Amino acid sequence: MPRYRLLTPGPVAVPERVRLAMAQTLVHHRAPDFEPVFEEIRANLKRVFQTEQEVLVLASSGTGAMEAAVANTLSPGDLAVVVRGGKFGERWSELCESFGVEALNVDVEYGSAVTPDAVRSAFERAPEARALLVQASETSTGVYHPVEQLAEIAHEAPDRLIIVDGISAIGVHDIPTDAWGLDVVVSGSQKSWLLPPGLAFVTLSERALQAVRTSTNARYYFDLRSEIDVQPENQTAFTPAISLLAGLREALQIMLGDGLAALFARHEALARATRAAMEALGLELLAPDSPSFACTAVRVPDGVDGRALVKHVRDRYDMTLAGGQGSLAGQIFRIGHMGDLDGFDILSAIAAVEMALADLGFPVKLGEGTRAATEIFREFYGERG
Amino acid sequence: MPRYRLLTPGPVAVPERVRLAMAQTLVHHRAPDFEPVFEEIRANLKRVFQTEQEVLVLASSGTGAMEAAVANTLSPGDLAVVVRGGKFGERWSELCESFGVEALNVDVEYGSAVTPDAVRSAFERAPEARALLVQASETSTGVYHPVEQLAEIAHEAPDRLIIVDGISAIGVHDIPTDAWGLDVVVSGSQKSWLLPPGLAFVTLSERALQAVRTSTNARYYFDLRSEIDVQPENQTAFTPAISLLAGLREALQIMLGDGLAALFARHEALARATRAAMEALGLELLAPDSPSFACTAVRVPDGVDGRALVKHVRDRYDMTLAGGQGSLAGQIFRIGHMGDLDGFDILSAIAAVEMALADLGFPVKLGEGTRAATEIFREFYGERG
Repeated sequence: MPRYRLLTPGPVAVPERVRLAMAQTLVHHRAPDFEPVFEEIRANLKRVFQTEQEVLVLASSGTGAMEAAVANTLSPGDLAVVVRGGKFGERWSELCESFGVEALNVDVEYGSAVTPDAVRSAFERAPEARALLVQASETSTGVYHPVEQLAEIAHEAPDRLIIVDGISAIGVHDIPTDAWGLDVVVSGSQKSWLLPPGLAFVTLSERALQAVRTSTNARYYFDLRSEIDVQPENQTAFTPAISLLAGLREALQIMLGDGLAALFARHEALARATRAAMEALGLELLAPDSPSFACTAVRVPDGVDGRALVKHVRDRYDMTLAGGQGSLAGQIFRIGHMGDLDGFDILSAIAAVEMALADLGFPVKLGEGTRAATEIFREFYGERG
Repeated sequence: MPRYRLLTPGPVAVPERVRLAMAQTLVHHRAPDFEPVFEEIRANLKRVFQTEQEVLVLASSGTGAMEAAVANTLSPGDLAVVVRGGKFGERWSELCESFGVEALNVDVEYGSAVTPDAVRSAFERAPEARALLVQASETSTGVYHPVEQLAEIAHEAPDRLIIVDGISAIGVHDIPTDAWGLDVVVSGSQKSWLLPPGLAFVTLSERALQAVRTSTNARYYFDLRSEIDVQPENQTAFTPAISLLAGLREALQIMLGDGLAALFARHEALARATRAAMEALGLELLAPDSPSFACTAVRVPDGVDGRALVKHVRDRYDMTLAGGQGSLAGQIFRIGHMGDLDGFDILSAIAAVEMALADLGFPVKLGEGTRAATEIFREFYGERG
């Protein structure tokens, strides 16, 4: 019976402790026993988001939280600057269109981070723009955008919002929401949160809360005003996904067990080792200059069919990597670094890539990738103490 | 260590087999192993909904599917007739308001079913109304509305839709979607579906599909056009709640194991026994004339504090019943009949109510309720063979 190994950038492998918590008898969300559970969750979500604001919990995929961000803080006829450097940047743009918000798209080559200058220039062309929408980590390319600097640029005009898709970044990169003045940050359970998909998170600055009060968009299920009213009383506006919340409680304890610095360091080490391994194998990284720690995107070498590579890894080695999305389909493969993974799981993924490339006739030196990664992991595990 | 007994009309007790399925290692939703799982789910959902149409699966609570129904089939400026006989009828009305649809509310006394005449009269006053929105089972009052007759009335005008909240009715009552010509039917996982909250379902007739194509509402996460495109390929538009789907596969096998007739008969027997028991105790039913099989709502007798009763049952007997919602708070208590429940669980609930009433000083003959229920259950179990 083969082990099934999941190394995609979401959904991620879920720790046994979390899975067993989700399998326990449900507690009704209006029963008193639920209150301390949700209170603990709320407190720990704030720690991971590094904010004093409430982190609202929605029963939806991460896209639901992205919709909530747009539908609650912007209004039809508004203008927004959108960083579009991958599938999820495109999603911001589509969401704006769906809600009557005009998007001024800053198109970025897939694999590159947006430059602060490009964003400043967009705001110069559109000084009336009410918001900047950006991914912290663009999951489709493995790029990390310079959120801290972008927040400063967005805030050069008063009342302008920076709305951050942190779906594959919160709990992965050190992104202090309050310290950087991020106005809206969203995330989703199937990433660093060690959970299956089905929960989404959104936090709002005071500036964003003001925008929520004035937005004229049609909204009901994702009307954050309802959630803002009831969450401080440990309730949600509609029936919450209770089993996932039971898992989230455990997951947050695991995430925060060794402190936030250790959480970020683990993701960084897995990403760094993966990059070193791929380069040692002579492969080219899609995002060498500003890599996300959520996943590493690797260009498929000439002569190899990217779809066949991912399929082969799955069929022969029982391991699920991610391919490319949209125009990157067949061009890249992606190795995820979130979820219930450690250095040895990443070594396994690197070995699987080595073997699969050899199987498909690409000249690769077996063991060169794992050797490079092992050097980094030895150091990482040693420093971890 | 007390057993925790959940007898609310959702969330419901989840069978061990379903909980363990949800605790298994996740299968990625883009991996080939997911396809047969979702294909089986799709086929079995159609059987429970009694439709040849696709039953779309959303990652949200049931309210998300209600929003999807309104936002996809109606447009701002449309007029709709709304049956408002409880909290969820009010929700239809609020959703209409949120999406710019004018609601002509047919207000029904809490505990009564709407009369076909009242709906016909509303359409006579508003012949241009594009839809009728109604609950099949109004969970807040335990009323079953006469959906079959209402569908006939709605369809007296061509292209008029009947939109049915079947959240606590599908898999409970025999509601043949296609045979009755229901245009939109929604449901949610934490009811008859033996699952935790977090999944919602919606099915659309050909007439409704046509309306989806012409609706001008803002929508993205709940844009059913995206789901209609991809679900026949065993995909969802956005990341699905995979662990809940793994549970749904098992739950559907359980629901369909003895056939639909047995599924409906079980809910009916649990409801009938509960009603008989409550009447034997001298209590008054809120909905004696057209009771839902999803839950039984019972008027709290004079001199007893309804909130105290529910709290006492929970504190002393480790059992969660539901109180009343909105204006019914403190006036009623509700015993749920959905989820992993059998006759013996209902007997336990009846006994808990008997004991709690006695504890609170209400003159009740201990054992009269369980006796009445036992007579019905003996017959039910005997007929079941």
